[in-house]
Amino acid sequence: MRENRIRTIWAEGGKVLSGWVGLPTSLGAEIMANQDFDAVVVDTQHGMIGFQVAAEMLQAISTTAAVPLARAPWNDPSSIMKLLDAGAYGIVCPMVNNRAQCEAFVGACRYAPQGYRSFGPARGMLYGGEDYLEHANDTLVTLAMIETSEAVEKLDEITTVDGLDAVFIGPADLAISLGCAPSMEPTEKIVVDAIDAIRAAAEKNGVIAGVYCAAGAVAKRWFDRGFRFVAIGSDTRFLASGAEAEIKVARGG
Amino acid sequence: MRENRIRTIWAEGGKVLSGWVGLPTSLGAEIMANQDFDAVVVDTQHGMIGFQVAAEMLQAISTTAAVPLARAPWNDPSSIMKLLDAGAYGIVCPMVNNRAQCEAFVGACRYAPQGYRSFGPARGMLYGGEDYLEHANDTLVTLAMIETSEAVEKLDEITTVDGLDAVFIGPADLAISLGCAPSMEPTEKIVVDAIDAIRAAAEKNGVIAGVYCAAGAVAKRWFDRGFRFVAIGSDTRFLASGAEAEIKVARGG
Amino acid sequence: MRENRIRTIWAEGGKVLSGWVGLPTSLGAEIMANQDFDAVVVDTQHGMIGFQVAAEMLQAISTTAAVPLARAPWNDPSSIMKLLDAGAYGIVCPMVNNRAQCEAFVGACRYAPQGYRSFGPARGMLYGGEDYLEHANDTLVTLAMIETSEAVEKLDEITTVDGLDAVFIGPADLAISLGCAPSMEPTEKIVVDAIDAIRAAAEKNGVIAGVYCAAGAVAKRWFDRGFRFVAIGSDTRFLASGAEAEIKVARGG
Amino acid sequence: MRENRIRTIWAEGGKVLSGWVGLPTSLGAEIMANQDFDAVVVDTQHGMIGFQVAAEMLQAISTTAAVPLARAPWNDPSSIMKLLDAGAYGIVCPMVNNRAQCEAFVGACRYAPQGYRSFGPARGMLYGGEDYLEHANDTLVTLAMIETSEAVEKLDEITTVDGLDAVFIGPADLAISLGCAPSMEPTEKIVVDAIDAIRAAAEKNGVIAGVYCAAGAVAKRWFDRGFRFVAIGSDTRFLASGAEAEIKVARGG
Amino acid sequence: MRENRIRTIWAEGGKVLSGWVGLPTSLGAEIMANQDFDAVVVDTQHGMIGFQVAAEMLQAISTTAAVPLARAPWNDPSSIMKLLDAGAYGIVCPMVNNRAQCEAFVGACRYAPQGYRSFGPARGMLYGGEDYLEHANDTLVTLAMIETSEAVEKLDEITTVDGLDAVFIGPADLAISLGCAPSMEPTEKIVVDAIDAIRAAAEKNGVIAGVYCAAGAVAKRWFDRGFRFVAIGSDTRFLASGAEAEIKVARGG
Amino acid sequence: MRENRIRTIWAEGGKVLSGWVGLPTSLGAEIMANQDFDAVVVDTQHGMIGFQVAAEMLQAISTTAAVPLARAPWNDPSSIMKLLDAGAYGIVCPMVNNRAQCEAFVGACRYAPQGYRSFGPARGMLYGGEDYLEHANDTLVTLAMIETSEAVEKLDEITTVDGLDAVFIGPADLAISLGCAPSMEPTEKIVVDAIDAIRAAAEKNGVIAGVYCAAGAVAKRWFDRGFRFVAIGSDTRFLASGAEAEIKVARGG
Repeated sequence: MRENRIRTIWAEGGKVLSGWVGLPTSLGAEIMANQDFDAVVVDTQHGMIGFQVAAEMLQAISTTAAVPLARAPWNDPSSIMKLLDAGAYGIVCPMVNNRAQCEAFVGACRYAPQGYRSFGPARGMLYGGEDYLEHANDTLVTLAMIETSEAVEKLDEITTVDGLDAVFIGPADLAISLGCAPSMEPTEKIVVDAIDAIRAAAEKNGVIAGVYCAAGAVAKRWFDRGFRFVAIGSDTRFLASGAEAEIKVARGG
Repeated sequence: MRENRIRTIWAEGGKVLSGWVGLPTSLGAEIMANQDFDAVVVDTQHGMIGFQVAAEMLQAISTTAAVPLARAPWNDPSSIMKLLDAGAYGIVCPMVNNRAQCEAFVGACRYAPQGYRSFGPARGMLYGGEDYLEHANDTLVTLAMIETSEAVEKLDEITTVDGLDAVFIGPADLAISLGCAPSMEPTEKIVVDAIDAIRAAAEKNGVIAGVYCAAGAVAKRWFDRGFRFVAIGSDTRFLASGAEAEIKVARGG
Repeated sequence: MRENRIRTIWAEGGKVLSGWVGLPTSLGAEIMANQDFDAVVVDTQHGMIGFQVAAEMLQAISTTAAVPLARAPWNDPSSIMKLLDAGAYGIVCPMVNNRAQCEAFVGACRYAPQGYRSFGPARGMLYGGEDYLEHANDTLVTLAMIETSEAVEKLDEITTVDGLDAVFIGPADLAISLGCAPSMEPTEKIVVDAIDAIRAAAEKNGVIAGVYCAAGAVAKRWFDRGFRFVAIGSDTRFLASGAEAEIKVARGG
Repeated sequence: MRENRIRTIWAEGGKVLSGWVGLPTSLGAEIMANQDFDAVVVDTQHGMIGFQVAAEMLQAISTTAAVPLARAPWNDPSSIMKLLDAGAYGIVCPMVNNRAQCEAFVGACRYAPQGYRSFGPARGMLYGGEDYLEHANDTLVTLAMIETSEAVEKLDEITTVDGLDAVFIGPADLAISLGCAPSMEPTEKIVVDAIDAIRAAAEKNGVIAGVYCAAGAVAKRWFDRGFRFVAIGSDTRFLASGAEAEIKVARGG
Repeated sequence: MRENRIRTIWAEGGKVLSGWVGLPTSLGAEIMANQDFDAVVVDTQHGMIGFQVAAEMLQAISTTAAVPLARAPWNDPSSIMKLLDAGAYGIVCPMVNNRAQCEAFVGACRYAPQGYRSFGPARGMLYGGEDYLEHANDTLVTLAMIETSEAVEKLDEITTVDGLDAVFIGPADLAISLGCAPSMEPTEKIVVDAIDAIRAAAEKNGVIAGVYCAAGAVAKRWFDRGFRFVAIGSDTRFLASGAEAEIKVARGG
Repeated sequence: MRENRIRTIWAEGGKVLSGWVGLPTSLGAEIMANQDFDAVVVDTQHGMIGFQVAAEMLQAISTTAAVPLARAPWNDPSSIMKLLDAGAYGIVCPMVNNRAQCEAFVGACRYAPQGYRSFGPARGMLYGGEDYLEHANDTLVTLAMIETSEAVEKLDEITTVDGLDAVFIGPADLAISLGCAPSMEPTEKIVVDAIDAIRAAAEKNGVIAGVYCAAGAVAKRWFDRGFRFVAIGSDTRFLASGAEAEIKVARGG
């Protein structure tokens, strides 16, 4: 089965820098995957992307060395399994708040006996190889989003679920859940403490700590604080801010 | 019929700054149209966009005050008329090299007796209004691309075609046609002279001079040189360069 | 944040007349939104519409003053949140039968602390504005469908759920659930009584009463009976009945 | 090869009543084809329909007994042949103004030696049958649109082109070309005379006379005047007028 | 309502041979439905097919006499009801492991009082007929997939659920769940015994036994062993193996 | 720029075996490209494929080592340039009948001064590399279809056009044009002679001879006769014949 570079980087003690795409376009995904990202996440939760287009975007990413990942729209087995069958090499799962939810998530990503994923990886085998079934459980990565106060209270039970590879912080939702304004780099003590606790629990239980952010400078700070999976979002922002900057100059502003 | 803001700006002696989109996504087009552009061009020539998606993108642009324009894939009446029927308020036409080609282009954009456009503006009337037929010939704008040595030789016959509103320079193709390397802001004398000649012929014959560029600073220089329609491209570049810049910072480079 | 005209009309004591679309076409949605409706519902339950096309239809409706709404395919947070992120200014939710289901529905439409909606309104902010997060909970409307005998028995517990704006009757499903033939304007006593009870419970608990119907004359009667949100369905019916009527005349029948 | 009911009706001296669809939706096309039309035309000229969706619409029509037809976007062999390959059982071709254009059109619809159509009817054989090649030239129908003053002047040379089955009047474009306001049932003498001349030339040269209209009552009048192919348009109008009528009643207007 | 040929064949004691499609293309589905299958299953679980394309594929199958079926992505009412509304004449439901899950599945396929399906069969009535509601519960078929060890233990409670028409074995998933390698024709005793037990339970409780396989020879053996619904998969395999065989010969291998 | 393996094989004196796809599905294209083909042609002439899907299919093929090619719908610069911009590494052009047509075709594939291709390879540069412009003229391959009697008469003027890489025989159309029944491996003397003449002219003028066929055994014979580009078609046939064969066995026929 084709190597999952994310696992290799992690095994070598390295850090993964991922892109993040929400525009429903396989060309956009291919452009992003041609940049120097280690992986690209197709966001089917807040991205305006249904399954059909997600599958095409995973194909587009597969023209490059970037690892194709997907964020599921929700913690439901139907979406998760379809995205894996479409060739995603890992799933970011929203709103994982306790052990039961984490087990449901991880189980949907693993074939029996480790989980309850149904077999039939139509495109997964094209991308991964003929021996997909044999190695998929050990190759695909699972990233559980920690973004609620409940999840922060149950970090230990979540991060000890067998088969979980990483936790992934959604700073905006986490801040909102803790009663603060959403921020890509929160400074309120309660949120900072929660983020530290998440990273500490991850480290303690042998799980990678990941986080979403919206700028390279912030990404660098997260890396420096020990996070080993950082996603920079996103294509929609690059469009808007790229246009905004050029317009300002063009108009002589 | 709904006003064409481009005509109004031109009538007031002003300058039009346009966006340019090549990603086949109505969400991307809507994001671009929400920036401070006067217009947005859906590029169905070099953009990866077929008619169906172009029509959806024109809808998306129509949620904003930006004027929806389209570049036709080629100087053929079929594509031009379909884009107008889909609500484009103007057409950028590639490779207009002589009077006959310019007349064919302009004629496809005008109802008889000024032209030979066929009547049936399915979406055009939704966007433009019930009195579309009465005012379309005077409302929609026509921009002929000058991008070959032949066109440069025939500037006068092109810019005197009745119903032509603007010429539009494709600097890259023009440079290639003149034997130079493609550039968004050519410096070779032969190309600079050609560009000056185009602008001069436009001014002489009462036609707007327009140009494509790839950065706001360049756009400003074009405006300063008398161009009154400048398009900044494009969404695909904003994706790539936005990602590239953030990655560099994130990787501490 | 952009005003939700539905709330404004309700606040002024007025009545909302909504269109209803089930054809998967953004052009069709735009045509409907150009009629004199206050709102248009994109029906992703019984309409033949998946998420991708629904998002394009919401864009199309947003070219007009009609408020873009969507019916979710089911009471599940994944679909509801995606439709809101795509710019729906309210959700009609099928099969809300008790307090728990109603709380699950309303919670999916509200950010914490009022609910558990995840943050990332990709297109919602384009349509609603930059201050979307601040005002979304008070702007978006929630309409719970009452269409089963269980729901009729639990009207009080449903209509007192915090954050619920309206109940919405599906006459056909309600009739079937009560053992009658489906009808757009039921006359059986048991159904009539249920409808009266629904409206009464809504009024008592400060919630708007809404209903689906299939003809303007019926809509008028519902308005006269105190319903303040009436949706007339639908595009598919207009196609069929329009064609049928013209054919009959054409064939001289 | 599957019978073309249009030919059969014509051979029996009967009249063909056709639907006309411009909404890009296979569900809409299927709804229309389920009404009592003899045929349905997928309009890829003024309809907002590209090839991909046109092919799906032809499939949808093929679930019924209605004959699937298409209007080409223009008189170009590429589009015409693709639509035939997709299973259209006849082509309505815009802007046929003289013999050369008519021969180009008809030739694109016929295999050698009668024409120059390229062989490879991917879906045509699914719909028509394995013996498609043997019978296609005699089965598929060709309808040339007469809608310009030039065409009216050259009726004889157009209607005597071998392999042409029908002429088809676009009243709106014809009126515009003759200097009148567009109308679905023109009353100006010059247009009425042109229409009479078209029908007379068709009858004289053994070609069917067809016409587009926008209401059943008008269709009936065309039938009474000897037209034997009348298309009633269209789905977009049924949407708008259906909604408009119900809204008026609902608002008590 | 249009007859469901599957029911008729079963009532006559016959066997149903079904195709199985996972490629997201309505043309592919139409080609398969033109072969000598009694039915074709659109696989929205492991097939790369979202709802929008599934609906188009069901249209394509409806151009033929093959019965249109669909496999739901999961045992959830939202997907099941949408596929039925789109004209599926039966549902194959994955992972039905106990009575509660089977009742949830069957209930989603039946209108009250037999189930809780919501009314609004947009395309179902086009395909099935105007009297759809009256006969749907008795016409549409329900096939519950038995593919886990839990399901094997609870065969009796599953196969006695009212309204269940058939069980359907997924040999690969069943083998994996029982600790064996996936196989389309398992030979391990534990799997063979399970398959025998499933068929026996089905027969005992008056339910049809069905199975998925990947070759005609295997299908024949299943028929001979008493299975009366056999699906041969799939389009993706036909592509790959067809190409592989021709390439080998072409390369002189 | 990324190597074009077709050129390399030809330069080494080898033979190119190509796949051929007409189903509008990027998954299908990816499956075919994963077989042992040297190249895969996306057929936008007789395949049911519009531009948008063609672009996605070229992406899918680009996940593999197979060279992505496309057949244009017709000899028109608009389609040819768009397919090249979408990343096709060569174009098969239908109906090239004389020098002028061949020059028009080849010119559309080459930048000035060799041709008149417009610059803007949106996806071409993603696939080919940043130095695309510098090497494209020497990298992309041009295959002109010889399929009419006129072309056979003008072999020398066609095969001596500068920049033409190969001729490609469409046996079915060629046979029809010569008055014979279409065949994938014609045996009539007139057709056999024409094919020999084509190959001889190609050899004489330093151009590769290519041909379309429908079976591996035929492909081998073409290779043995000196053809060095053989395409085996197609995906649609593999679907139909694969299903047909398995059905026969399954039904015990």
